[in-house]
Amino acid sequence: MDKDPQLQLRIFDLNCWAIRYLSKLRQERLSLIGDFLCQEEFDLALLQEVWSERDYWELKKKLCAHYPSSHYFKSGVIGSGLCIFSKHQILDTFLFQYSVNGYPYMFQHGDWFGGKSVGLVVLKIQEIIFNIYVTHLHAEYCREKDGYLPHRVVQAWELAQFIRHTSNGADVIMLGGDLNMHPEDVGIRLLRGWTGLKDSFIAAEQVNGNEDGCTLVPANCFTGKKELQCYPQGIRIDYILYKGLSQYDVRCNSHETTTGTAPKKDIPYSDHEAVMATLSIEKKSDKSQKHFTVEPVLVDILNEARMEVRVGLHSAERQRYSCGRMGILALLLLLMQGAMGLNSVFGGGLQQSFPKFSFSLLGLLAVLIFLISAVLCLFHTIEVKVLQGTEEQMRVALQTIQSKLSSG
Amino acid sequence: MDKDPQLQLRIFDLNCWAIRYLSKLRQERLSLIGDFLCQEEFDLALLQEVWSERDYWELKKKLCAHYPSSHYFKSGVIGSGLCIFSKHQILDTFLFQYSVNGYPYMFQHGDWFGGKSVGLVVLKIQEIIFNIYVTHLHAEYCREKDGYLPHRVVQAWELAQFIRHTSNGADVIMLGGDLNMHPEDVGIRLLRGWTGLKDSFIAAEQVNGNEDGCTLVPANCFTGKKELQCYPQGIRIDYILYKGLSQYDVRCNSHETTTGTAPKKDIPYSDHEAVMATLSIEKKSDKSQKHFTVEPVLVDILNEARMEVRVGLHSAERQRYSCGRMGILALLLLLMQGAMGLNSVFGGGLQQSFPKFSFSLLGLLAVLIFLISAVLCLFHTIEVKVLQGTEEQMRVALQTIQSKLSSG
Repeated sequence: MDKDPQLQLRIFDLNCWAIRYLSKLRQERLSLIGDFLCQEEFDLALLQEVWSERDYWELKKKLCAHYPSSHYFKSGVIGSGLCIFSKHQILDTFLFQYSVNGYPYMFQHGDWFGGKSVGLVVLKIQEIIFNIYVTHLHAEYCREKDGYLPHRVVQAWELAQFIRHTSNGADVIMLGGDLNMHPEDVGIRLLRGWTGLKDSFIAAEQVNGNEDGCTLVPANCFTGKKELQCYPQGIRIDYILYKGLSQYDVRCNSHETTTGTAPKKDIPYSDHEAVMATLSIEKKSDKSQKHFTVEPVLVDILNEARMEVRVGLHSAERQRYSCGRMGILALLLLLMQGAMGLNSVFGGGLQQSFPKFSFSLLGLLAVLIFLISAVLCLFHTIEVKVLQGTEEQMRVALQTIQSKLSSG
Repeated sequence: MDKDPQLQLRIFDLNCWAIRYLSKLRQERLSLIGDFLCQEEFDLALLQEVWSERDYWELKKKLCAHYPSSHYFKSGVIGSGLCIFSKHQILDTFLFQYSVNGYPYMFQHGDWFGGKSVGLVVLKIQEIIFNIYVTHLHAEYCREKDGYLPHRVVQAWELAQFIRHTSNGADVIMLGGDLNMHPEDVGIRLLRGWTGLKDSFIAAEQVNGNEDGCTLVPANCFTGKKELQCYPQGIRIDYILYKGLSQYDVRCNSHETTTGTAPKKDIPYSDHEAVMATLSIEKKSDKSQKHFTVEPVLVDILNEARMEVRVGLHSAERQRYSCGRMGILALLLLLMQGAMGLNSVFGGGLQQSFPKFSFSLLGLLAVLIFLISAVLCLFHTIEVKVLQGTEEQMRVALQTIQSKLSSG
């Protein structure tokens, strides 16, 4: 089983912003993305926010010559938006849907409906097993007062745990996606610290494109200028992360982003910039290295993450309590109305003057409030369980890390 | 790193049937279970249907001397019911919640509220890494007309995929739980075929307890006699499955079930019988064996499973369509009512005779039907996505198996 001394892979990652009826110039942009992928002949294209399966099938039709193998991950109400196009045969696929992902009643944000997940495909290239992960975490709508931060931290933790537990059979692992976190955010530090993944932007021997590798830049005409007010250069929230396991070394030869508009066109591919990386994989002579090593800094990161989860837990418990109270009030109102109704029917005298219309309108309101409160109370109960469970998982991990560190 | 020539582990598995306010003699039975576990000093106790965390904490208090490490898996509205008590330190935990699990409106069955999952804990005993899985699949309420079969097949597939993908780092894997499937059912064949897990009942050198290893037996006073009408001996739906990975060989020395009543008591531990197995783990001399081998029969099993998933898909699509149609009808009724209401307000003449009361009651009904239909339509849309996604995952796996088989 003689292997090539060096295998080079070119990876493309983009949040395509392809929401039917909502995203501007969707079809033109998808067509540009397809052209670019055909022309560049990457080994792998990891796409997010391809919300419509019809768009996926059109891309598939266009890309089938250069990317004969592909997979669309289905989840949630409108899909996960995640898909992978590959030059190499996909051998197996698996999907893990995050346990929390915003709220169904936040229609204006809509993340909940997407069923945010991490998708895994397994490839074998020149006898080397690759686990390729693609994901998209919950968006950040307001950095100063980010109510979704606990959910995003839980997602980052579940992503890290999923990668840790599923990657032992692989020689090389790679993750691409819109993580909706800045490089210094606790979720990224947790993910990188817990899995040992390297950031292609930081590790690359050569970097091209936007300054600081930014993928959400003011130069892009589709980007909301308001959200970048504090970041005149833009922000980096899309990543390609990678790691060679015991037998293999992976180096990042180059990291590149697109810069605002597609070459020779006046529109960009998306509201995000694409990330492209060239990785070279080499067999190691020293095979003794462990899959996961533990750094002391991880203890602080995990504690910081637990704190965020606890903040989320308090908020979820408060919301569950509010919904429960509202439901009980609505039920009391209904009971009172029932009693008054019965009284008016059997009490006799009042029947003529009984305000049936406003009475039944009030009843309608009470029933509605009761139903909505009950469903929301159920929802927040699930959220509480997930946050408690995550905190407990983190506690077990922390214990293990600490005993590893103390035993040297 | 010299290892003991042979490591022996004793495993206990039981569906505890501990539903607060519903299960008969819950506290007495849990106390008996606790006594038995203390007395027998198993290495691992895998429990299902411990629905109340308070019951878990009481068991934990009782068992802490013999089982210092334990974990309760939280998910769904009322928890997963799954917990593990271990003599050996738990190093890591992870939870995968199945994508489908019955319907929230089937209150009488209630499976949906449990958030059925597979829980994983990682142990290290004498330098051997163990991945221990505990799970509980959707119940079967009517074998002749089992509407939940597609959901159970999806769960069995996700369980198999979860084990396949997370077990590569382990030396030995073990699964215990109430799988709610008979040994010859497609889900069990799929799970065993796709993971290579061995059934402790079949592989055991010595078998004790109920005939055919049955775990739901008529002799148990809590078991519904009606559901066992066709099976006078009982059925076997609780399992301990195991596998040694490349470096290790696992043998099952003995397999035992409890038989109706607890020793010297007149009540059983649960409505299920407990399964107990003694496994011995030995280092292999021949390390060449692959982790997962592919048998030609797997093609037929996968095709059979895909067929079940497709049956579920048709049913989910029908239900989504019905809910959508109902929602649209309710919306039309509301619109008509709105038009009539406006007409009565601005039309003048009819105002006196307008039947406000029955009109608003009808409005209430229409709003209720619309809301419920919308939520159910959303729910069945998610179900459709999951079933489609599973079918696609199975298709990819089938393709890989076929190409492996044809390449010899």
